[in-house]
Amino acid sequence: MSQADTSGTKREPASNWRFEFSDYAHTRRFLDRLAELSKSEDFYPNINFGRTYANISIDDEGRLALGQREAAFVEAMQTCAAQD
Amino acid sequence: MSQADTSGTKREPASNWRFEFSDYAHTRRFLDRLAELSKSEDFYPNINFGRTYANISIDDEGRLALGQREAAFVEAMQTCAAQD
Repeated sequence: MSQADTSGTKREPASNWRFEFSDYAHTRRFLDRLAELSKSEDFYPNINFGRTYANISIDDEGRLALGQREAAFVEAMQTCAAQD
Repeated sequence: MSQADTSGTKREPASNWRFEFSDYAHTRRFLDRLAELSKSEDFYPNINFGRTYANISIDDEGRLALGQREAAFVEAMQTCAAQD
């Protein structure tokens, strides 16, 4: 007996990154750099932040918008977080 | 027969505000003003934003931190959003 495939349509999960900072000044410097990056790339991910952290997510729509630039954007974002 | 109270401990839901803007420049100006407000009040709500919106939430812990200043903070935040 064959069983129906119950997996349904799988939606690729959004990509998420979490960055933690020692204090708000560092969080804000990261957000400022990311804002510059967003402006230069004309791409605006969803950003959730509090005093000492920032969660960045890029959903399917964002991926489509970024296309081949996605890897470069992600790398540049990580560079923004690594700078002091 | 008396029935047990099944309501349990109710946790006050977080307060949320959603602000929408015509474009990213307006969103960013709001976020910049809110950052100044946060700095002056030493209070940092959770902020979730994309290109044309910002969701601000203040949870129980944030309320405790704000205390009597909560209403004033919320009003100042709304003023930040209303400015052009």
